[in-house]
Amino acid sequence: MYKLICKDGSAKRGEFATVHGVIQTPVFMNVGTVGAIKGAVSTMDLKEIGTQVELSNTYHLHVRPGDEVVKKLGGLHRFMVWDRPILTDSGGFQVFSLAGLRKIKEEGVYFNSHVDGRKIFMGPEESMRIQSNLASTIAMAFDECAPHPCTREYMENSVARTTRWLARCKAEMARLNDLEDTINKRQMLFGINQGGTFEDIRIEHAKRISEFDLDGYALGGLAVGESHEEMYHIIEKTVPYLPLDKPVYLMGVGTPANILEAVERGVDFFDCVYPARNGRHGHAYTNHGKMNLMNAKYELDSEPIEPGCNCPACRHYSRAYIRHLLKAKEMLGLRLLVTHNLYFYNKMMEEIRQAIKQGEYAQYKKKKLAGFAEGGEA
Amino acid sequence: MYKLICKDGSAKRGEFATVHGVIQTPVFMNVGTVGAIKGAVSTMDLKEIGTQVELSNTYHLHVRPGDEVVKKLGGLHRFMVWDRPILTDSGGFQVFSLAGLRKIKEEGVYFNSHVDGRKIFMGPEESMRIQSNLASTIAMAFDECAPHPCTREYMENSVARTTRWLARCKAEMARLNDLEDTINKRQMLFGINQGGTFEDIRIEHAKRISEFDLDGYALGGLAVGESHEEMYHIIEKTVPYLPLDKPVYLMGVGTPANILEAVERGVDFFDCVYPARNGRHGHAYTNHGKMNLMNAKYELDSEPIEPGCNCPACRHYSRAYIRHLLKAKEMLGLRLLVTHNLYFYNKMMEEIRQAIKQGEYAQYKKKKLAGFAEGGEA
Repeated sequence: MYKLICKDGSAKRGEFATVHGVIQTPVFMNVGTVGAIKGAVSTMDLKEIGTQVELSNTYHLHVRPGDEVVKKLGGLHRFMVWDRPILTDSGGFQVFSLAGLRKIKEEGVYFNSHVDGRKIFMGPEESMRIQSNLASTIAMAFDECAPHPCTREYMENSVARTTRWLARCKAEMARLNDLEDTINKRQMLFGINQGGTFEDIRIEHAKRISEFDLDGYALGGLAVGESHEEMYHIIEKTVPYLPLDKPVYLMGVGTPANILEAVERGVDFFDCVYPARNGRHGHAYTNHGKMNLMNAKYELDSEPIEPGCNCPACRHYSRAYIRHLLKAKEMLGLRLLVTHNLYFYNKMMEEIRQAIKQGEYAQYKKKKLAGFAEGGEA
Repeated sequence: MYKLICKDGSAKRGEFATVHGVIQTPVFMNVGTVGAIKGAVSTMDLKEIGTQVELSNTYHLHVRPGDEVVKKLGGLHRFMVWDRPILTDSGGFQVFSLAGLRKIKEEGVYFNSHVDGRKIFMGPEESMRIQSNLASTIAMAFDECAPHPCTREYMENSVARTTRWLARCKAEMARLNDLEDTINKRQMLFGINQGGTFEDIRIEHAKRISEFDLDGYALGGLAVGESHEEMYHIIEKTVPYLPLDKPVYLMGVGTPANILEAVERGVDFFDCVYPARNGRHGHAYTNHGKMNLMNAKYELDSEPIEPGCNCPACRHYSRAYIRHLLKAKEMLGLRLLVTHNLYFYNKMMEEIRQAIKQGEYAQYKKKKLAGFAEGGEA
């Protein structure tokens, strides 16, 4: 249940009540693809860095260890030892981007596993069953993330099918939530808006899926190759056609700057692999832009990554030490960097919530973006 | 300063006071080769698992980031953020085992760096200077760890040179501890007994180095290919010729069973890479032998690695989850396993100290070994 606490322009400050606790929005979900955060970060660490929601990938967990295994072990919460909300994606995105040869039919998608090549079929019902087995807090509808760019005709057909699939997802989720042996009988379902950069298709689809009265709505198929400006434009034009009393989730986005812009346009939920991916490349997020810790200038630098940062890495360790660990390929270096980066995102969301509440979001965003620009890429 | 609290047979329960705190012995030092524990285990984690002493490798730190860099950053304690004792090895073992082409001369060893191939010279004075720069609590004398097997003649010459090097180490350490800008002016020096499996050479050398009145003594060059029985025999025959009022350190040893046997023969300090190395292979130490978590039988096993174990991995996570992480090559799996294994060693040392104090060491050892034998290799 989503409660809109206040608005500042189009930016929303909300609370989303789930069976696993209340999520304060806007929120950044921390990605744990196979039920674990990259960089050896544990679920105990996540609590320390203020993570509200963990996101896991349905396709990956279906392939390994298998959703039936996770179900037998009591669901994903017990498996990975995390009692706060978990959102699972539908598997669709991975099927369309990772899997080998695939065939899209009305019933769903036939494809080969990226692990062992075995043939798998996944359609709306299969995705819901897998997510029900995983027993996440929020399940995502099974959709097609159409290739970018694609023709208008392709997109229209794809979106129409995604809508038909959504009806099947909703029916199947209702059926599963009623079953005796379902772990989370109050599993929520978010629908996904598609349409690429075709504004009218996006809007039409947003209206259509809003009628399904789901627990939340996502914008899918963005940050797939279009410009930031196109993305912001689509968000701005589409969000008004989604229900104001439901959370809006911008899937797979993005940089801190992307998030600041999207929040301003009414988005509540975010997820992105950047904090971990940048960690792997030796990059740390700071309020003065990204920092490349492999840089020789940090060799003798005894300051923390970001002075004043209260993350477990900055509270204890220096740039020089983390740089040394990265150079020596010690896993601890990656762990400290990823921890810092996730904390940075989580902390920024906290600031965002505060700024919206105080009606100062525009000033906050401006100041934050100016800080990022000081040090280069945000 | 070593204080012998009590003996149980030849097993010693002692306290070793250092400038960085008192070490309760027998003790297992946790190996952090380049100033970090393998498996992304942080120094904060080490405190949680009861680590008393961290061990770092002089050669590795000399090559990267460089001991001068560490000195400029305030020494190894500040660099890696660890306020308890640190022991640094002399670099000798790595020079003899890791480095490329090398030449042993009276003055020291000429060799090529394993990182970039550049020529390095290391002799007793260089080793002391590097360790003084690192500012460890305990420095190890620079010795030759002779190849195994080798001729009696080679060993005699090698040991004689190691004794001459020891005199130079002691003199240089005294000089360094007196310098104005030395970080740890109370750095301790341990001498190293060599002699391979030549009992008489070992004993003669033990007598010789005991005359140097050092802070402690180590047995080097064991567990390099000889049988466990030969190793136990050499320990048993040599330890009585080392001063009872100084700690005895068995370098690079070993399995839990090796440690139990060596403690019984009067050894105080241990170090070994097994807890981390076994972790990398999916092996966990338990009181019922080693467990291979990659084994399919743990797929649905919701028990912790060892029920009742109070380590951070066992307190929270299941065998099934850790197995999944290892199969999926998620770094967190390795971190949890290494954490468990280090805790296992640390906890066993605590039990050993307790058993000696209660005069029940023989029974304790017997029971412990019987437990290990239940599950296979100890």
